Amino acid sequence: MVSKKQSKFIKSLKIKKYRTREKCFIAEGRKNVLEAIASGMDLRYLLATDQFIDNNELPRSIVEGNLLNVDQKILEELGTFTTNQDCLAVLKMPDNVQRVDFKDHVVVLDGVSDPGNLGTIIRTMDWFGIRHLVCSLDTADFYNPKVINATMGSFARVIPYYTDVPTFLADCPLPAFGADLHGVNAPDWQSDGAVALVMGSESHGISSSLAQHLEGKVTIPRIGEAESLNVAIATGILCHHMRFNFS
Amino acid sequence: MVSKKQSKFIKSLKIKKYRTREKCFIAEGRKNVLEAIASGMDLRYLLATDQFIDNNELPRSIVEGNLLNVDQKILEELGTFTTNQDCLAVLKMPDNVQRVDFKDHVVVLDGVSDPGNLGTIIRTMDWFGIRHLVCSLDTADFYNPKVINATMGSFARVIPYYTDVPTFLADCPLPAFGADLHGVNAPDWQSDGAVALVMGSESHGISSSLAQHLEGKVTIPRIGEAESLNVAIATGILCHHMRFNFS
Repeated sequence: MVSKKQSKFIKSLKIKKYRTREKCFIAEGRKNVLEAIASGMDLRYLLATDQFIDNNELPRSIVEGNLLNVDQKILEELGTFTTNQDCLAVLKMPDNVQRVDFKDHVVVLDGVSDPGNLGTIIRTMDWFGIRHLVCSLDTADFYNPKVINATMGSFARVIPYYTDVPTFLADCPLPAFGADLHGVNAPDWQSDGAVALVMGSESHGISSSLAQHLEGKVTIPRIGEAESLNVAIATGILCHHMRFNFS
Repeated sequence: MVSKKQSKFIKSLKIKKYRTREKCFIAEGRKNVLEAIASGMDLRYLLATDQFIDNNELPRSIVEGNLLNVDQKILEELGTFTTNQDCLAVLKMPDNVQRVDFKDHVVVLDGVSDPGNLGTIIRTMDWFGIRHLVCSLDTADFYNPKVINATMGSFARVIPYYTDVPTFLADCPLPAFGADLHGVNAPDWQSDGAVALVMGSESHGISSSLAQHLEGKVTIPRIGEAESLNVAIATGILCHHMRFNFS
């Protein structure tokens, strides 16, 4: 059973203002919820159907604590999925008191406003084991349900930091490289250590206030005629290169 | 002015059955429409606002032939964009009487059902100058408005062939490589000529009926913990590799 108050609270988390105030967000569906549980995220409620409870071995602390048994209709009413036969978790946002770790590559997003692109970038970073993500304040919200869904569970392993990007880059000890149409060709891009990869928006590219903080620019060479690459595709190609082609 | 009959016809093109019957589809927004015109696609109607007509130099054949001057409200009523201040084109599907060209790389999609992913793959192929796309019959429809929109104009330069993929691969003169979790590592993947890159669905991968037709499998190595990569991201990384790392 879900109380009226709980129901109102969960619904409010679709809106950024309430997520920020409550420091909570929702994750929906089997994959996202199981990844959140496995990674030990702080779980406030787990709403789950009989079917989900029967088919998954849940930690005792959840079963005895904050499990709410609901039917599919409630999940679809409170969440964003058209069909959800499984579950919905209300999770506490991690306190990112730790600083960005500069021992490994960092991805920096400047004005990436599409939630699907952000979610796909988070999933791709997780594939390549890149954990630290710096976002400009006008980048989509990491905890937007559309972003969480597109991460396919990877939201539990990538750590976001929202900040003013020029200020971040001014203090960043890693060499920063921006993806741009006029840079060194990606196949020739080299670095002997960790870098900060800076991705601008598809429509505006790297802004001039960022350019002064860059060590260099990198270009994915174009053979055909498309005007631009999708930002998540470009991030994927460059992360792959950073992992496997750097000396 | 748009007649009732034209309006009904244009609206019907959101549905595959009618697109197939009429061999027509719609493209919306400045970028998609201008690319279609520039590439000489067969244009049945161009619906455009005053603003669009004033700001773009349109070929005389269009201005004197099949231009319908409309307001924004009509564009939004007939198309799929929430906001469209510019234009909507009704285009004839090209007759793909020519066969797949095996002089260059070919991308083969098996069961890629998400329209956004398909559109992004088409845009990425266009960036890398790969023109021939073979799709299984259960792949999303190339002419679905969501696909066309995600291509950002690249639909005008990539040629789709819908067919039974095992049959296609049985006759394909190019060596076919399937993206798979258990193959040669992408950084070590080599070929001295064009290949057919086969991408399965994210959930099911390469089906067993395809595996027998493959020359090999290729893996994008995973460092982190994501269960899979988005299919468009994986296609982008492998196309980049095919263009710049093959000898």
